[in-house]
Amino acid sequence: MKNSALLALAAASFALALPASAQFAKPEDAVKYRQSAMFIQNQHLGRVAAMASGRVPYDAAAATANAEVVAMISKLPWAGFGPGTEGGKAKPDIWKEQAKFKELNERLMAETEKLAAATKAGNLDAVKAAVSSVGETCKTCHDTFRSR
Amino acid sequence: MKNSALLALAAASFALALPASAQFAKPEDAVKYRQSAMFIQNQHLGRVAAMASGRVPYDAAAATANAEVVAMISKLPWAGFGPGTEGGKAKPDIWKEQAKFKELNERLMAETEKLAAATKAGNLDAVKAAVSSVGETCKTCHDTFRSR
Repeated sequence: MKNSALLALAAASFALALPASAQFAKPEDAVKYRQSAMFIQNQHLGRVAAMASGRVPYDAAAATANAEVVAMISKLPWAGFGPGTEGGKAKPDIWKEQAKFKELNERLMAETEKLAAATKAGNLDAVKAAVSSVGETCKTCHDTFRSR
Repeated sequence: MKNSALLALAAASFALALPASAQFAKPEDAVKYRQSAMFIQNQHLGRVAAMASGRVPYDAAAATANAEVVAMISKLPWAGFGPGTEGGKAKPDIWKEQAKFKELNERLMAETEKLAAATKAGNLDAVKAAVSSVGETCKTCHDTFRSR
């Protein structure tokens, strides 16, 4: 079994186990938690995107390292959107359209796993396509569920 | 090779690859990045600690899931303490005593890996000991390098 598959499995297993244990002391902690996770996500995604677009020379090890962090961190923010955690830039629609929100969460997790796999395979075209899919998923969710 | 060993290897490999690619657009981003990582770390460590101390019933899957996040996230903050990123609660000593700071970073990564392994092995005494070692490492570093 390849490392990437094991990482994906491990990530999936903790994504499943996390919600049950996602107890925040106060709603503000949940808001800060999801914002922190998305900030870290964005930093690392930005580095892969810079390489994918040619703005920064492509470094396979750095691309993989950053994409792996993106994939791991992408499992986290959702636990921070539990009941009663309205706030920040989150639109109330998140809590009204849970199925749609969850579908986008899952899409992001799947797309970031593909990105990590593409960086590991060292296929620059696949990396570019995956960066674009991840970015589109971010944008779709933000356009729908994040206020300006 | 066991999953935990592979995860540790994967984590170690990206910890090595990250510094080279850790380019923050501005110093404030580095400060926010390290603070975000430590906030997430603390949330997940708190959940394992609550179970280890008996304040919350022990749930093996949740303990492992949270400990794995702690171990993964523990690789991240250090890239946010690069040259010229003084700020937040970080004492200037961090940039004057790099060897000491780095030793504590590495100790935390090692102790959090041990915690993840202990939760996976399901040995509650080992989990308690590991939580205590992780907490002590946090405290040592904060006492030395974080202003009040």
